Amino acid sequence: MYQQIADALRAQIDVGSLEPGAKLPTEAEMRDKYGVSRETVRKALALLVNEGLIVSARPQGHFVRRRQPMVFRPQAEFRKRPWSPEMDAFVTEYSAEGREPRQEIEVAIVEPPADVAKRLHLESGELVAVRKRVRYLDGEPFNINDSYFPLNLVRDSEIMRPEDIGRGANEVLAELGYRQVRALDELYVRMPTPDETHRLDLGPGTPVAYHIATGHTEEGKPVRVAITILPGDRHVISYERRREIPSEEA
Amino acid sequence: MYQQIADALRAQIDVGSLEPGAKLPTEAEMRDKYGVSRETVRKALALLVNEGLIVSARPQGHFVRRRQPMVFRPQAEFRKRPWSPEMDAFVTEYSAEGREPRQEIEVAIVEPPADVAKRLHLESGELVAVRKRVRYLDGEPFNINDSYFPLNLVRDSEIMRPEDIGRGANEVLAELGYRQVRALDELYVRMPTPDETHRLDLGPGTPVAYHIATGHTEEGKPVRVAITILPGDRHVISYERRREIPSEEA
Repeated sequence: MYQQIADALRAQIDVGSLEPGAKLPTEAEMRDKYGVSRETVRKALALLVNEGLIVSARPQGHFVRRRQPMVFRPQAEFRKRPWSPEMDAFVTEYSAEGREPRQEIEVAIVEPPADVAKRLHLESGELVAVRKRVRYLDGEPFNINDSYFPLNLVRDSEIMRPEDIGRGANEVLAELGYRQVRALDELYVRMPTPDETHRLDLGPGTPVAYHIATGHTEEGKPVRVAITILPGDRHVISYERRREIPSEEA
Repeated sequence: MYQQIADALRAQIDVGSLEPGAKLPTEAEMRDKYGVSRETVRKALALLVNEGLIVSARPQGHFVRRRQPMVFRPQAEFRKRPWSPEMDAFVTEYSAEGREPRQEIEVAIVEPPADVAKRLHLESGELVAVRKRVRYLDGEPFNINDSYFPLNLVRDSEIMRPEDIGRGANEVLAELGYRQVRALDELYVRMPTPDETHRLDLGPGTPVAYHIATGHTEEGKPVRVAITILPGDRHVISYERRREIPSEEA
């Protein structure tokens, strides 16, 4: 029975008769409408909370989750302007215009996590510098970005200072002789760890994308691994692709 | 208390002392080890199931979730061979070598969902052809791919037949005069719908990536929208990026 009530509410959310941000009927209203117990209503609501469709905001009640995704565009670091009019329009539509960004930066020297050591081809015992950033928009934590660099490359550079680098850490690396010309991106989708839930203030039913980008120099040397944790309710990740040689498959 | 037991198990999974596929201690063993009630042990296990870290396989017990991701490489449709040695190595490492692929195909003429109509710039009332595919690997459903085409472009083509198209639907579109040269990819991360859970046989704590690709011709006409639902426990999504003009920011 609670499944049927959840199905009915989900259908209303799908077609938009319950819009993002809309308040759901109260528990008492639903008990009357469907002729069921309080327990049944609560199970239906809990199901939708875990599916990430609604949020509970006591004491006001339950609301349809509002999504105002920010565009995460990994290609932007190598290409500030999109290639195509479609991407231009897309970025504009989803832009965070008018929202107030802020970030917290922390720098540390650590032993690299296994997945970082592997991608940077580090020997056992080699250390890395990591710049850990939490990015906020309008005071809300939006994503976590941890960028790792082999310590021996960046030891005496600006990268070691816990401050914003106007021209970007990539440019500092380039000045040190390690310009990145290629990157490999991997995206994994999973539930957040308790630490991520805490740092990003995530509600139930909110999975994350784990985005790991490895930057290589022209010679194929990996010099940076950037790990970004993107909560699913706050982001759309976007790429543009282009056919390389139009005649190739003609 | 159940949180602490979950933390202890999670830590063992993180560092690998409990490996993918390993069997967890039984409920009785954990009751003894931690001196807690059956109820407490069950709550700790339920938490880890919902985080997607372990799976329950009654009556045998609980196991650390095994991940054997398949590489989903959207760029492959425009570029069969990777650009870079890093991607070559990556694709090889995660290849589905030796696993048996199979797909089910269904073709229908439908009113487009709102997000498809918008991306194809369709007028109200215009219909689309959709090729719905479920892809299996070793008998396990791996992903769902629904490709939408404006009906007036593909009405009399091979695309309407519920069979595999050896050279690909994109090539059929090109023969009809609509070669795609650019695509815009959007990736959303969310919990699965009940229908997706059913079709993909998803366990608890398994979010999905919703990948929507819009293909455009040289003239900027959108001619195809492909929606792929990728369970997080079975995929890694990958892209390679290249700096366009090395001297641009030098």
